[in-house]
Amino acid sequence: MGEFDLIERFFKRPTHNAVLGVGDDCALLQPSPGTQFAISCDMLVEGRHFLSTVDPFKLGHKALAVNLSDLAACGAKPLAFTLALALPRADEAWLAPFSQGLFELADLHGCELVGGDTTQGPLNICITVFGEVPVLAGRSQALLRSGATAGDDLYVSGTLGDARLALEVFRGTVSLPAPVFEAARLRMEQPTPRVALGLALRGIATAAIDVSDGLLGDLGHILNQSVVGATVNTDIAMTLVAAYTYYTVAGGQFGTNIPAAQWRSWALAGGDDYELLFSAPVAQRAAVAAAAQASQTPVTRIGGIDAEPGLRLVDNQGQAVPSTYTSFDHFA
Amino acid sequence: MGEFDLIERFFKRPTHNAVLGVGDDCALLQPSPGTQFAISCDMLVEGRHFLSTVDPFKLGHKALAVNLSDLAACGAKPLAFTLALALPRADEAWLAPFSQGLFELADLHGCELVGGDTTQGPLNICITVFGEVPVLAGRSQALLRSGATAGDDLYVSGTLGDARLALEVFRGTVSLPAPVFEAARLRMEQPTPRVALGLALRGIATAAIDVSDGLLGDLGHILNQSVVGATVNTDIAMTLVAAYTYYTVAGGQFGTNIPAAQWRSWALAGGDDYELLFSAPVAQRAAVAAAAQASQTPVTRIGGIDAEPGLRLVDNQGQAVPSTYTSFDHFA
Repeated sequence: MGEFDLIERFFKRPTHNAVLGVGDDCALLQPSPGTQFAISCDMLVEGRHFLSTVDPFKLGHKALAVNLSDLAACGAKPLAFTLALALPRADEAWLAPFSQGLFELADLHGCELVGGDTTQGPLNICITVFGEVPVLAGRSQALLRSGATAGDDLYVSGTLGDARLALEVFRGTVSLPAPVFEAARLRMEQPTPRVALGLALRGIATAAIDVSDGLLGDLGHILNQSVVGATVNTDIAMTLVAAYTYYTVAGGQFGTNIPAAQWRSWALAGGDDYELLFSAPVAQRAAVAAAAQASQTPVTRIGGIDAEPGLRLVDNQGQAVPSTYTSFDHFA
Repeated sequence: MGEFDLIERFFKRPTHNAVLGVGDDCALLQPSPGTQFAISCDMLVEGRHFLSTVDPFKLGHKALAVNLSDLAACGAKPLAFTLALALPRADEAWLAPFSQGLFELADLHGCELVGGDTTQGPLNICITVFGEVPVLAGRSQALLRSGATAGDDLYVSGTLGDARLALEVFRGTVSLPAPVFEAARLRMEQPTPRVALGLALRGIATAAIDVSDGLLGDLGHILNQSVVGATVNTDIAMTLVAAYTYYTVAGGQFGTNIPAAQWRSWALAGGDDYELLFSAPVAQRAAVAAAAQASQTPVTRIGGIDAEPGLRLVDNQGQAVPSTYTSFDHFA
């Protein structure tokens, strides 16, 4: 199977959003009147972002999911994506499920493959995704990292830390009951981009980011770009690790005892969560709840934005919790 | 140096075309009224698209050049690009010249870096480029592969085959006098995207493609998509190898004798040329010449489009030349 057969068989499909899709030097996208294009790009490398043993179907899902998550964090509606793929060899048994996982998620969000590149090389998946955001009365409706204001509430969607917990199981540092592990593994291998929530938060959230490098590290970007500080309740954050609920129901042990500091660490600095972290004015609490309900996405208030710079971690009693968390850094 | 320092130091610059550049979840581009977006994506892998010994400055140039060449082939005006980079390590001595080579070419074309990704991994450079094409009276002005018509002339810009010749020198199959090799090496390592020519050919060319996998292979895409055939004069094509001129001036030898069939092969199936191959009506010959002059890009008529399907190679006497050329295929 050659390069062009490979594209024809696994990656060429009719387009609806795009004027022109796969098969020419460029794809052509016609912007809708009154919109801007939102663009994001993520590269996934074997051994770094995924294990070599991962199911290709799930990998196809994840490669697009992490990109859609960036659109979600901007409140952008997905339109199209390009896929560049370096493969050790043109292996049909890998390409068929990979493309199925990719297109299943793409179809769910009406996001079309419009172009890309395939080449021989160490496994590397690079997706660039395009979405649209309305411009109303000259103002972009995109959610940015820079709009958080002192007094705003701070929220996070879904669950935290389970992807990291699954990774620790693979690394052999933790063992979990099978059903708990399977649930955590699903979070690591098939994260859910919070696209509908991002769209529902337009005009409500003042700032947003997707949590990919760990909650506190990504919160740091909002604080820097908004020039504010924040207080985060770590007791609440810890309960957002789905496995923690099983753990407490199981009476505080899974065979191994896991200390509270460890659960906190997974929740606050686990990484690979692909949840939305966002701020919104206190007056918008009902609107946030309505957005969560409309998008069928759980949302939890985990703290607030402060005028005072810096990050403060507190427990349910308002006592300071020591912070030694670091964000994931690919070159640290 | 961590991931965020690396981006800050080498890749974050103010934007003019983009509403929002590097530093948020997405970049934002505001389309001009009456335009479409043209999008293309190319991935470069060490050992496959470039030698590990290549000068990083030249590699930065080439990584963007091959993408701008796709915009040129569509007649699109460059606006912006994203860069995803997998690096074995965050090496300043590599990053500084790489980013310089990249931005020098980007600035020449007013094409801004608006986003991307950096990660640890085997060296891999993935660029996605965005350009704009006007839509006039409901018709896109993009040059496509599908518009060639029987009776059209067939043209190619610049020179052919020298990049391949340089590669053969590196492989040790050919030896060249130093100045001839240096000129060929420049074509391999720092190709010139024919952006100005592509823009000048809007409304004149009926079909266009950039020659990256070899002239005949890429011509095959035009023929397939336009449902036509073509005749190519291989004697003319052979003279477009710049080194061939030196060779004939040198009295037909460079130490080694190189047979005519070899020169033909480099011209017709060399690859990595990044020239524009395009068709235009006979009535537009003066317009093509004017476009070539306005864009300061040499253009040569190398044949014509036929109603009869298939590709015919002929010499200056109109005699058939046997064809056994294959296009470059990353998985063949």
